[in-house]
Amino acid sequence: MKVRRESRPVAGFRAAGIHSGIKEEAPDLALIVSDTPASVAGLFTRSTVVGAPVEVSRDRVGDGQARGVVVNSGVSNVAMGARGLRDARTMARWAARSVGCEEQEMLVASTGVIGEPLPMGPLRTGIPNVVKALSAEGWDAAAEAIRTTDTHAKVASTRLRLGGRMVTLQGIAKGSGMIEPNMATMLSFLATDAQVAPATLRAMLSRVARQTYNCLSVDGEGSTSDSVVILANGAAGGPALRGAERERFEAALLAVSEDLVRQLARDGEGATKLLVVDVRGARSAAQADRAARRVGNSLLVKTAVFGGDPNWGRILQAIGDGQVAWHPDKTRIHVGGVLVFARGRSTGPAARERARRAHEAEEIQIRVDLGLGDHMARLFTCDLTYDYVRINAEYTT
Amino acid sequence: MKVRRESRPVAGFRAAGIHSGIKEEAPDLALIVSDTPASVAGLFTRSTVVGAPVEVSRDRVGDGQARGVVVNSGVSNVAMGARGLRDARTMARWAARSVGCEEQEMLVASTGVIGEPLPMGPLRTGIPNVVKALSAEGWDAAAEAIRTTDTHAKVASTRLRLGGRMVTLQGIAKGSGMIEPNMATMLSFLATDAQVAPATLRAMLSRVARQTYNCLSVDGEGSTSDSVVILANGAAGGPALRGAERERFEAALLAVSEDLVRQLARDGEGATKLLVVDVRGARSAAQADRAARRVGNSLLVKTAVFGGDPNWGRILQAIGDGQVAWHPDKTRIHVGGVLVFARGRSTGPAARERARRAHEAEEIQIRVDLGLGDHMARLFTCDLTYDYVRINAEYTT
Repeated sequence: MKVRRESRPVAGFRAAGIHSGIKEEAPDLALIVSDTPASVAGLFTRSTVVGAPVEVSRDRVGDGQARGVVVNSGVSNVAMGARGLRDARTMARWAARSVGCEEQEMLVASTGVIGEPLPMGPLRTGIPNVVKALSAEGWDAAAEAIRTTDTHAKVASTRLRLGGRMVTLQGIAKGSGMIEPNMATMLSFLATDAQVAPATLRAMLSRVARQTYNCLSVDGEGSTSDSVVILANGAAGGPALRGAERERFEAALLAVSEDLVRQLARDGEGATKLLVVDVRGARSAAQADRAARRVGNSLLVKTAVFGGDPNWGRILQAIGDGQVAWHPDKTRIHVGGVLVFARGRSTGPAARERARRAHEAEEIQIRVDLGLGDHMARLFTCDLTYDYVRINAEYTT
Repeated sequence: MKVRRESRPVAGFRAAGIHSGIKEEAPDLALIVSDTPASVAGLFTRSTVVGAPVEVSRDRVGDGQARGVVVNSGVSNVAMGARGLRDARTMARWAARSVGCEEQEMLVASTGVIGEPLPMGPLRTGIPNVVKALSAEGWDAAAEAIRTTDTHAKVASTRLRLGGRMVTLQGIAKGSGMIEPNMATMLSFLATDAQVAPATLRAMLSRVARQTYNCLSVDGEGSTSDSVVILANGAAGGPALRGAERERFEAALLAVSEDLVRQLARDGEGATKLLVVDVRGARSAAQADRAARRVGNSLLVKTAVFGGDPNWGRILQAIGDGQVAWHPDKTRIHVGGVLVFARGRSTGPAARERARRAHEAEEIQIRVDLGLGDHMARLFTCDLTYDYVRINAEYTT
């Protein structure tokens, strides 16, 4: 199926993004609403310090049903204690009342500065305004309003025919850019008019996240506010997805999520390139995952990618340092599609030169085949550049 | 006791460093020799891909006795298969013969490029020359010859009176600079004329390393060649150290090792500052260690230190992301000696300003008290700067 980097209306959903006054000028308040109660599933940061909005939303997705999500950028409402929780609930309550749904049916997310109170004044006036702005075409505006240091808004969508009905899946995302003064938060919101039971939705999102959102790393840092939420309102009609149709929908969810994650990695702070690390031939899934994370989070590998250097030595070193039980002699390494290391040594200067030229592309793949089994793992990340240091060092609280 | 950053003769030891031709111009071959068989202990990289010299030396320190160690810089002899092992043993054998000891008594270490064969021609002529250059005052030359991208040689020494006899402890080290094209190798060699039984020496080195060499991180990357070796030849006379004297010697070993580690962290690639992360009040040693490593290896914390920003938000985020079971409300954070976070929130702009000014020093401490127990851990590291990216991106294989 074809994923487009553009938004499409989803039956029974409206979205909006506006400027409420939390930020000086840029859009900072987004709302996504389903006309009817929708199945909901969510995945949240595993950090042991989480934002108040995460606490509220994590609790509410447990019901399996929701009407929408209200999101602000500019202030993350993290590390604010009891006041933070109260403010997050108030923000959601205002949105629920304006929309006309139960408080419990409204999720909430925030991204931005930590350690500052949520600006309730702008939200009190902004929420009725964002409700007025809701429209079937509001996805781009919503994607704009959740941005922090992202250099562009991220949207992806697809349509597919399921049981004789056209179904739409729309996603927006932000991150892993940083916001003053703190953290790389990843937010993603997905909506579909397919009919999906909550338990099915949860299981699908969890499987898809293992191959997408959980395989994204800009700098190895997780955030206190990472959230992925999907709403399915069934407005396309028909019975709840099952069997082959459920599988086809899951493939669509995987494709849209992967596309968003590629956009996020490519737009990582200071990045010039999307780096996809593929590990194959591992003895176990855990071994594959560990090796992929070691390679993709290695500063030495990431600076080599920035420098256009197909440096297999650093790749070997990163895997070895991860205490992966392996045999370097069985390991094969491709960089940019070119075999640069096999049988325990370099494949020579001509291959290196071709691999170096492959760095001219905006996307580069490092493929490591451990030659031990048939497990694989993938990490989406980016290169490490001067601009990463500039963005994160020059800004001071 | 007083540790000096200068070398001192150690009774019964000679050292030397010369240019053998592995590098174009700089010194590249070092030798340390005891006139008599010395007790020996060594600690080596835990990477699952190790250099051939590590394999050879790790085996030989098992005997508990050695006469010396021969070290080259420029080529690391890693990822060279059977040829690498043969070359490492040959290099050690040449040194043993020139010195007049058993092959098994000579350790070997290499640091530099990986994936290239050890240049045996320069070593064949260089080893007799470095033996001729041996002298009681040769430590500085040896420290120079093991450098790679270190901006200066690292030496530290101390003297203490044990059982009525003056005892000297001398150490040299290199790293964690990188060498073309690959890796941040840490090497440290220590020599003392104290009389220490091999088992005692091993136990002491292991305890000391837990507080020094194993608490050093420039970029979270371990190397294939990391090695620490100590030789104790007893030339100062007297019986083997025991009881209170053993403890005093161990304190000296700790002090010299910590000083070397501070020099290494401060001279990390591109570093402008030594960053010491102290975690206290942890529930267990493992929790303290995990939190310290998370904070000290966080790119966001390290760029904030470069930017002179006492950013407690990033410190909280790093600990939370490490899935440390904690209570942010009980956590107290000092940056540069100034309390910047307590009772779940900022201590205000005046404290922040004082903490910011503390960054003008060459050394900065981040102290995190988790408020949960009485375990502690420390990490020695440095800031992350433009120069780190330049050094590691601009050089290509």
